[in-house]
Amino acid sequence: MVVKVYGPQCASAKRVLVCLIEKEIEFEVVPVNVLTGEHKDPQYLKLQPFGTVPVIQDGDYTLYESRAIMRYYAEKYRSQGVELLGKTIEEKGLIEQWLEVEAHSYNPPAYNLTVHVLFPALAASKTSDPKVIEESEAKLGKVLDIYEERLSESKYLAGDFFSLADLSHLPFTDYIVNNMGKEYLIKDRKHVSAWWDDISSRPSWKKVLELYKPPI
Amino acid sequence: MVVKVYGPQCASAKRVLVCLIEKEIEFEVVPVNVLTGEHKDPQYLKLQPFGTVPVIQDGDYTLYESRAIMRYYAEKYRSQGVELLGKTIEEKGLIEQWLEVEAHSYNPPAYNLTVHVLFPALAASKTSDPKVIEESEAKLGKVLDIYEERLSESKYLAGDFFSLADLSHLPFTDYIVNNMGKEYLIKDRKHVSAWWDDISSRPSWKKVLELYKPPI
Repeated sequence: MVVKVYGPQCASAKRVLVCLIEKEIEFEVVPVNVLTGEHKDPQYLKLQPFGTVPVIQDGDYTLYESRAIMRYYAEKYRSQGVELLGKTIEEKGLIEQWLEVEAHSYNPPAYNLTVHVLFPALAASKTSDPKVIEESEAKLGKVLDIYEERLSESKYLAGDFFSLADLSHLPFTDYIVNNMGKEYLIKDRKHVSAWWDDISSRPSWKKVLELYKPPI
Repeated sequence: MVVKVYGPQCASAKRVLVCLIEKEIEFEVVPVNVLTGEHKDPQYLKLQPFGTVPVIQDGDYTLYESRAIMRYYAEKYRSQGVELLGKTIEEKGLIEQWLEVEAHSYNPPAYNLTVHVLFPALAASKTSDPKVIEESEAKLGKVLDIYEERLSESKYLAGDFFSLADLSHLPFTDYIVNNMGKEYLIKDRKHVSAWWDDISSRPSWKKVLELYKPPI
């Protein structure tokens, strides 16, 4: 059964796509144009009642929330493709910890920065707000200072192995480095910069970037 | 080895405490007074660099982020106490989906409502902001409309079984129902109300409420 992924242009769906490629799982994509509001169409809301992307359909199994979908496939196909959940339950605990840090500390300012610099039409205010940009940049800097410390101790966030915790940072960090002229946030921090060069050069990510252009 | 849980008075730590009780895991608590800023002390920041509660120490293993800690113990002690991760990998996928919904859609307005109604000293503005209260209440209402629909189809969020997805809602929903006079948000929705009555009457939750008083 081929997995259907809705909304491949969106950053959060790209987490899922990289994960599927790393796990060597076949998929097809279904475009959802968030800039024209397709994610709020009644038909789409039947699949995802909160009106966000991505959703996957795998036979008659439907799942939403990008990090939940990644966990599901990384666990279901544990022995296929790249191991993304660590080797021990303690390693997995640390992966979960850094996935939560990504979701709650890194992603909110990275998302706000992306929306207000690149896609103001998606902001609640519908326009770019310089105050939000400034505050998000400052918050992200503080978070990245902690990442710099962590990445001076281990090559990747959860330890010396690539995992879902690193992978989950790819889409929004790519916007920061390559699309909005804020690459200093990453490049000015030695260990964060080396980590970024490493994870963003994975063939899985390059393939996703090549195949599915933003927005968003 | 007894698990040490830091910050038992805090809502997010209470997720961990309920989970440990459900899994029949022995623990002891270490108070952290967030109202006097103990979570920003240099000593505490060595354990949790982002300055939030909870953290656990289990021998020489340290872990933070409440939902990561819950996942770790629910998986490590899968066959002990109550099963909180479902029976199949598909059930677990849905648990992860609803845990993410709780974290990203339910918790932000529930948290803002709690802080601005009950603990304004913890707000960025240091005072209660009526606009934040109004907006959070409206957002939470919309989320709960989707919960109502979901809970008309299954007894619990991920299916007909209690799981981490339900458990994770306990601390902030308790504030909403029992401490801030906003119980209509839950009580006026038939299926949400029945679900709340069910999960909040679990002995594990009653014990946590009795032993560890807020704030926060």
